[in-house]
Amino acid sequence: MATTVFEYYHENRERFLQGLMNLVRIPSISALSEHKPDIRRAVEFLANELREMGMKNVEIIEGKENQNPLLYGEWLEAPGKPTMLLYGHYDVQPADPLDEWVSPPFEPAIRNDNLYARGAVDDKGQTYLLLKAVEGFLKTEGKLPINIKFLLEGEEEVGGEHIEEYVPAHPERLKADAALICDTEMFAPELPTITTGLRGLVYTELEARGAAHDLHSGSYGGVAPNPFQALAEMINNLKGPDGKIRIPGFYKRVKKPSAKESAAWARLPFNEKEFLRKEIGASALTGEKGYSVLERIWARPTLEIHGFRGGFTGEGAKTVIPAVGVAKISMRLVPDMDPKEVIRQYTTYVKKITPKGIKTSVRVISSAPASVVSTESRWITAAAQAMEQLFKNKTVYIRSGGSIPIVGIFQKNLKIPSVMMGFGLPDDNLHAPNEKFYLPNFYRGIEAVGRYLELLGQ
Amino acid sequence: MATTVFEYYHENRERFLQGLMNLVRIPSISALSEHKPDIRRAVEFLANELREMGMKNVEIIEGKENQNPLLYGEWLEAPGKPTMLLYGHYDVQPADPLDEWVSPPFEPAIRNDNLYARGAVDDKGQTYLLLKAVEGFLKTEGKLPINIKFLLEGEEEVGGEHIEEYVPAHPERLKADAALICDTEMFAPELPTITTGLRGLVYTELEARGAAHDLHSGSYGGVAPNPFQALAEMINNLKGPDGKIRIPGFYKRVKKPSAKESAAWARLPFNEKEFLRKEIGASALTGEKGYSVLERIWARPTLEIHGFRGGFTGEGAKTVIPAVGVAKISMRLVPDMDPKEVIRQYTTYVKKITPKGIKTSVRVISSAPASVVSTESRWITAAAQAMEQLFKNKTVYIRSGGSIPIVGIFQKNLKIPSVMMGFGLPDDNLHAPNEKFYLPNFYRGIEAVGRYLELLGQ
Repeated sequence: MATTVFEYYHENRERFLQGLMNLVRIPSISALSEHKPDIRRAVEFLANELREMGMKNVEIIEGKENQNPLLYGEWLEAPGKPTMLLYGHYDVQPADPLDEWVSPPFEPAIRNDNLYARGAVDDKGQTYLLLKAVEGFLKTEGKLPINIKFLLEGEEEVGGEHIEEYVPAHPERLKADAALICDTEMFAPELPTITTGLRGLVYTELEARGAAHDLHSGSYGGVAPNPFQALAEMINNLKGPDGKIRIPGFYKRVKKPSAKESAAWARLPFNEKEFLRKEIGASALTGEKGYSVLERIWARPTLEIHGFRGGFTGEGAKTVIPAVGVAKISMRLVPDMDPKEVIRQYTTYVKKITPKGIKTSVRVISSAPASVVSTESRWITAAAQAMEQLFKNKTVYIRSGGSIPIVGIFQKNLKIPSVMMGFGLPDDNLHAPNEKFYLPNFYRGIEAVGRYLELLGQ
Repeated sequence: MATTVFEYYHENRERFLQGLMNLVRIPSISALSEHKPDIRRAVEFLANELREMGMKNVEIIEGKENQNPLLYGEWLEAPGKPTMLLYGHYDVQPADPLDEWVSPPFEPAIRNDNLYARGAVDDKGQTYLLLKAVEGFLKTEGKLPINIKFLLEGEEEVGGEHIEEYVPAHPERLKADAALICDTEMFAPELPTITTGLRGLVYTELEARGAAHDLHSGSYGGVAPNPFQALAEMINNLKGPDGKIRIPGFYKRVKKPSAKESAAWARLPFNEKEFLRKEIGASALTGEKGYSVLERIWARPTLEIHGFRGGFTGEGAKTVIPAVGVAKISMRLVPDMDPKEVIRQYTTYVKKITPKGIKTSVRVISSAPASVVSTESRWITAAAQAMEQLFKNKTVYIRSGGSIPIVGIFQKNLKIPSVMMGFGLPDDNLHAPNEKFYLPNFYRGIEAVGRYLELLGQ
């Protein structure tokens, strides 16, 4: 029997792993409505875990129709101690293209100390380690060093509408001193990392309509407007070959990183050639001149095309001029860009660059501002200290190119900073085939969070 | 009992219609390999019809693996009379998008004297009327006014590889004075039309590869090459907003229609506003300045985008930078462009305009030259006369923007002209949802072909 928290963490590794494997077996894909039952299974799985470990007032919080439930649980029996709000998400990205997975996305497999599965690191593995860190205290000491509130969501990958409505409506229940989020990655293996900035996101569908119905390209090619030709033209007008986004006013509010921040980034162990070879695997990098790779990812906005819907994409030679084409287009935002303003600029510009014969419409699927948190607060410095003890390396502060909208939501509604301790690795294939989680980081993640809670309780 | 051919045609209308409905119920889609059994059912259906009507040496000609069979049948007992080669195709286009069909594509339905079904007019209806015209003579007179060879194929919609190999290898068996093809349309309702020119086609897939695997647009957006951004850029370089194709040398061999031809086209009953409203249904037409609509469709090449494969196209907000994107791109050719030369020009130019960080490859799915046939030969003038008698209007000569590669194959290998009598209407929705065939044209088509054979036998 374990007598200390850290002995407990060590002795229960195999059980923690089995638990995580059970969790990632549930294909809780929030983007695909046919997976609603799996969303339910995932939230119930975690609710049971919270109850079993001894959290109080565990509640599956239902939302409006089509919204995925939130999961809440608390332990508030440490009077005078701080209260941390622990956040994670149990939904995952779609798994396609399926044929590029070495092992099936929802049948977890271990190879070279890595657990391969959709959601392994984003974010089931990093959510689950929060639970296990807390469980350690409750199962050994019967109490926690500080007060804890869990708030887990099931819509992070599709815009998080439910939590976005819930947080502003329940500031008293969620009241805390800071939030802890494990949904980011380490800058390099063995280099403990806290993320202090995130890009925002505006994700849209741009629909172009030409003819009233699909047309034969033999009979009408040369006179009928082609929505895909129009979208190609418009995409070129949105972003040039130089990587510059051409939407008027788009860069107006972009704030440069401080000189100190830029200098720290320049000292990070980053090799552009290695990055290109190992992480990208293309023949060259692209993007704006005059900015380093890290600056382009962390501190510059981008505009990306994710796919086109419509027309004929099968194996043969269907000669169709489609009536409708849709491009899925997103923009990443940096401080101090305002998503609402960006949407206005984008929509106005889209109208302006719509070619003759085409009607366009923009549908906004999700949006969130960028955020930057201070590195000076005790919440951040204690986290840095906890990670240093586990990884035996000095903690670095980085930003992330991705978006975690909840950081902005907590800041705005609860007025609390978010501490982003991440245990993912740069080659963990987030949102891509063969997503994985490096298991030593899963176990050290549990211990680092445990140590963090201890430090905050002192 | 019918005593004359034309009485037979009248008395058997209902039976002919039932036969055609049975034929279009078979979803013989050549572009989708899962429909191979339907291809087989369609060719056997027609082989039985040929045998039952009294054609000799009826043979289902098997091709290489994956090729769809040809169907041959002959009646050569009119010594001293000409020999016509009757061509049609029994394969059809895919039916998607299914939800835009008023009645299901393979459950024929009659509304307002139109038969609605995939393949109703392209080309099952127009193939079937050839059979019924010949059947009339055999069932009433026991003989034909001329010698007839049928050659039907099942790959017209996917490039016709089998027939392209078979015709050059069997010139003796297929020897004829001219070919008759019913796979075109009338310029306007009640206006008998012979098509004397067709555009050619080069249909390709342009694949762009960026990173070695799909990437998260948060983590890598701004530095990773995006294949869809690259394809959009390349498409803009292939064809400008002015409708001009920018491939060097592309227009070099383009032959203008003769002054006489242009003048005849200008006299055709064509109303651009009506055409835009009824056939296209967009807010405006597009294309090259300085050319009329008919010139742009009939005598100018075009380049069209049919669809994009890859990335994420589902309902949610998957933030992926795909590793691979494919654009389906075709070019329509006019006399005297050479498909091989166009493919070379296109491939060379694609390499040149491939953006940094991207690797591209071109796959040619099908190609065929444009063709123009003489309006002076007896084969054409007799056809014009037969149609005039049925439709009580002077026959007009037009071109078609579409491609019928077999016309070029017959010209090159058998040295024979093709007579294109078409009974489709401009609003028949070829290759689109709600394809239809105007039934009075089905019946008049049978009689016009019967009258044509009579005239050729005199």
